[in-house]
Amino acid sequence: MQKDTISRREALKIGALGTGLAMLAGTNAIAATVLEKDVKFDEEYDVIVIGSGFAGLSAAAKASERGYKVLVVEKMGRIGGNSVINGGAFAVPNNPDQKKFGIKDSGELFIKDCLKAGLGINHVELLQTIVERVNDAFAFAVKCGAKFQTAKEPTWFGGHSVPRTIVTDNMSGSGIIKPMTKYVQSLPGCKIMRRTKFDDFVLNDKDGVVGIVVRTNYKFDSNLHNDDIENKTGDKKVFRAKKGVILASGGFSSDKVYRKLQDPRLADDQDATNHSGATAGAMLKAFEIGAYPIQVGWIQQGPWASPDERGFGVAPLLTQQGLFKFGMAVDVRTGKRFMNELADRKTRADAEYVILREDPKAYPVAIGTHNTFAEQILHAIDKGLQTGVMKKFNSVDEVATAYGIPAAALKESIKKYNDGVKKGEDEFGKPVKAFKGQGIEAKGPYYCIRLVPKPHHTMGGIKINTKAQVLSSKTDKPIQGLFAAGEVTGGTHGASRLGSVAVADCLTFGMIAGENI
Amino acid sequence: MQKDTISRREALKIGALGTGLAMLAGTNAIAATVLEKDVKFDEEYDVIVIGSGFAGLSAAAKASERGYKVLVVEKMGRIGGNSVINGGAFAVPNNPDQKKFGIKDSGELFIKDCLKAGLGINHVELLQTIVERVNDAFAFAVKCGAKFQTAKEPTWFGGHSVPRTIVTDNMSGSGIIKPMTKYVQSLPGCKIMRRTKFDDFVLNDKDGVVGIVVRTNYKFDSNLHNDDIENKTGDKKVFRAKKGVILASGGFSSDKVYRKLQDPRLADDQDATNHSGATAGAMLKAFEIGAYPIQVGWIQQGPWASPDERGFGVAPLLTQQGLFKFGMAVDVRTGKRFMNELADRKTRADAEYVILREDPKAYPVAIGTHNTFAEQILHAIDKGLQTGVMKKFNSVDEVATAYGIPAAALKESIKKYNDGVKKGEDEFGKPVKAFKGQGIEAKGPYYCIRLVPKPHHTMGGIKINTKAQVLSSKTDKPIQGLFAAGEVTGGTHGASRLGSVAVADCLTFGMIAGENI
Ligand SMILES: Cc1cc2nc3c(=O)[nH]c(=O)nc-3n(C[C@H](O)[C@H](O)[C@H](O)COP(=O)(O)OP(=O)(O)OC[C@H]3O[C@@H](n4cnc5c(N)ncnc54)[C@H](O)[C@@H]3O)c2cc1C
Ligand SMILES: Cc1cc2nc3c(=O)[nH]c(=O)nc-3n(C[C@H](O)[C@H](O)[C@H](O)COP(=O)(O)OP(=O)(O)OC[C@H]3O[C@@H](n4cnc5c(N)ncnc54)[C@H](O)[C@@H]3O)c2cc1C
Repeated sequence: MQKDTISRREALKIGALGTGLAMLAGTNAIAATVLEKDVKFDEEYDVIVIGSGFAGLSAAAKASERGYKVLVVEKMGRIGGNSVINGGAFAVPNNPDQKKFGIKDSGELFIKDCLKAGLGINHVELLQTIVERVNDAFAFAVKCGAKFQTAKEPTWFGGHSVPRTIVTDNMSGSGIIKPMTKYVQSLPGCKIMRRTKFDDFVLNDKDGVVGIVVRTNYKFDSNLHNDDIENKTGDKKVFRAKKGVILASGGFSSDKVYRKLQDPRLADDQDATNHSGATAGAMLKAFEIGAYPIQVGWIQQGPWASPDERGFGVAPLLTQQGLFKFGMAVDVRTGKRFMNELADRKTRADAEYVILREDPKAYPVAIGTHNTFAEQILHAIDKGLQTGVMKKFNSVDEVATAYGIPAAALKESIKKYNDGVKKGEDEFGKPVKAFKGQGIEAKGPYYCIRLVPKPHHTMGGIKINTKAQVLSSKTDKPIQGLFAAGEVTGGTHGASRLGSVAVADCLTFGMIAGENI
Repeated sequence: MQKDTISRREALKIGALGTGLAMLAGTNAIAATVLEKDVKFDEEYDVIVIGSGFAGLSAAAKASERGYKVLVVEKMGRIGGNSVINGGAFAVPNNPDQKKFGIKDSGELFIKDCLKAGLGINHVELLQTIVERVNDAFAFAVKCGAKFQTAKEPTWFGGHSVPRTIVTDNMSGSGIIKPMTKYVQSLPGCKIMRRTKFDDFVLNDKDGVVGIVVRTNYKFDSNLHNDDIENKTGDKKVFRAKKGVILASGGFSSDKVYRKLQDPRLADDQDATNHSGATAGAMLKAFEIGAYPIQVGWIQQGPWASPDERGFGVAPLLTQQGLFKFGMAVDVRTGKRFMNELADRKTRADAEYVILREDPKAYPVAIGTHNTFAEQILHAIDKGLQTGVMKKFNSVDEVATAYGIPAAALKESIKKYNDGVKKGEDEFGKPVKAFKGQGIEAKGPYYCIRLVPKPHHTMGGIKINTKAQVLSSKTDKPIQGLFAAGEVTGGTHGASRLGSVAVADCLTFGMIAGENI
């Protein structure tokens, strides 16, 4: 075997020989699967959790409370993945605050809402489990130290039939992740290792999971095209997990390779709303040991994002509660509108892609005047202008020049749109009747944001049962010693996740995994 | 290890010890992956093809023409899978017949049509390859002995911008499969083994595929819930494939377990249009050795099928070119219409599922009068009535009684629908203006068919490149020795396959796999 033909996988195993992997007697063959009988363990735990987001931390906290020695491995330098940058909005059907404020909710209504958004292909038994346990998960988060805005009425999120969303005190997922991290670290026998990358499962002779191969001192490199394959940093170690492993590695919206296989419209350099470590590597490893891949083709993309800032940014606020309302979006090549700016996420992202497919740099532009911004986001206008993601112009001609839009056509489009608003009729079916004549104001000034769909949530993933056990395609039964929770799993949300249901999903199934392992 | 705890997989390997698998020295551990160093081969071939449909046979024919010793393994007693029961409609953009009849077509137009149906998520490089090579594949099929209706103008299939579909002489895929089987069997060194089930890949020490584990004398059992897991019949053998393996095992529309994981609306006893052997087992094995799962959540379902016959049957003809035209479909519980009977497949299947989700046995009923049937399907009316899939009634009251529909509501719905047809306006946006007043005739008699969506084509699957090589998620490079073609692969059709493009896909990539292995 020549050194330059050794694959990453082989290199990993050879590299590990010195520490944990025993040489196969009389052969240099490398098994495609890492077997217990071929390794020596460097460290031993009861439970190992992969990932330190909502799902991973709640699993670790629960397992640790049960007296287990728990290790959380997190490949990044920062704890919390997508969870720590999230909006802190937590859908809790039948929550105590609803009762306090006289809001009538029910499990059936919640499931109905999710099925509607999910186009009917949600795994109902998982939604049912959320209904049954989400209040426990909420209480558990509070016990761990999370603070929520419980003094006021729950928030009414789009697609939900009633207000049922509770938001953290600081309006961020960090309001859950930070105290939960502290709580986990305060428990005896529970530790978090950052910059520690899960690479492989260790299996026993019954296809059960008994440990993992990791690299400590891992340096994630967001400049690599495919960090999971190309990154060679770190020191190999093999850890035993006597009770089993909980996979909570999150979604793959930042995985340039795997997300593009699911949706080839995604450009390599297209930014996501996610943290850069949201890659598919860990999930793909689970597929290799027989976890069922389900619904992996459904990626939710935000049509309200901008190429002129990184990540989620401020554009979603300024478009959703601003420019998309009384304003409009145009194709810069023609100056014409091309969508109902208030349609569902998928419809709008698809419309933007029709343009970007023809010209990858012809980012559509959202245009509106000051009247379009909702009261509660007026504070964000300055932020948008300062960071440059939103621009302000005094005339339509200035707008046209700045973006290379044919000026006459743009003026014509604005006129047509405004006329429609007045008549209560819109060529794309936008509900302009409700606008009471408010459109784009002739006096200006004009506010503009360039648009690009950004991958936001990956609905598909690994199939789990209601106990958070991973099912095997080899047996259609649970894989011994393997649990999973959070965005790495699929089915709960079907074709499209409703806002604020991810927190419910991740915390509930993280807790359940910790209870059942 | 106790006998009653041995898994299928272990049993398979232990069972095989007598013939091909050598005992691992000093251990009873069973490797999760079958490695070359652990097996003895019973037979040797250059190329092994899994599956005997369009993709498998064209791959075998091509590889064999190149002088290779080729084996085709087919698990069923019958050769041809879905291909031999298919409609024989073959989309060939830029075909010689188009030129003969003055039809202007282009590769770009074909790709545009496919992207439109596929909601933009098709893998364009695969479509491009079809454009470049489909005329070669067509010529190759003719060379193998297939006969097509080339004297008349190509057929214009729904969703295609121009007539480009060539149909076999006997209007069935058997018109290709039968002569191709003969051709393959006539080539020296090429053989087909029926009732031979592929179970596992054999890998070398570089994760390359060098053979397969099969069971000969396999008896597929459609009564099992999951044949791939539960069926224990057959005699284990291990075959070497010196050049490699071509996976052409088709789609999974008949797989009760895996299809339901993708679309939980599918009832276990819900029939498919497919042959009963259309299961996911072989594809899942490829995922285990690192093949990328892509877009597996997209299953195309025919809203024009009936629960009152098995398989594709005659209902699709009688509804698509009959009852759905001037007639209507109603919810039996209310007597009301619930969809545009001429919407796209997914929209209509989704509408039927809304009803079936509430009551799994409340199959909607399509109702029409004689005027609705197209000239060319008049011959099928008797067949529908004889098999009982279509029923004939003299009055609306009889219809109502037969299906338990509230009679007054049904009469009201017919009136409302007919009034709409006259006005050229329809509550569900059906293009009734074009009907010139033709609706349901008051004099009767009434023809009725019960409806259920039937899974028809699975769009997702394994990721291949334009050379039909299977890409590995471990390296993002081809898996050495593994090729795939046909419905087991994903990406070509995106979210939805256009009619007659499956034959193009399967024959083109089957041929390419045979050329490149
Ligand atoms: C900007 C933004 C705002 C959002 N707002 C909301 C909201 O308000 N409400 C809501 O319900 N949802 C929201 N979501 C979605 C929600 O935040 C996520 O679905 C959720 O945080 C996922 O939690 P998780 O625990 O599954 O994964 P994550 O929180 O992403 O954690 C997974 C962790 O696993 C680590 N990891 C991955 N692979 C490996 C490996 N091989 N080895 C070791 N570690 C690994 C990752 O680095 C990561 O830290 C938002 C998402 C984003 C991006
Ligand atoms: C009723 C019907 C009508 C259709 N009409 C058309 C049409 O007119 N035009 C069109 O373009 N498309 C049509 N399609 C779709 C098209 O026929 C299929 O997509 C195509 O035949 C698939 O070809 P294939 O070679 O990939 O798989 P198949 O023809 O299904 O062959 C796969 C074979 O692999 C075998 N196999 C599976 N697993 C194993 C294993 N583990 N070991 C050994 N063997 C295994 C199966 O038994 C099967 O025989 C139709 C489909 C149906 C069901």
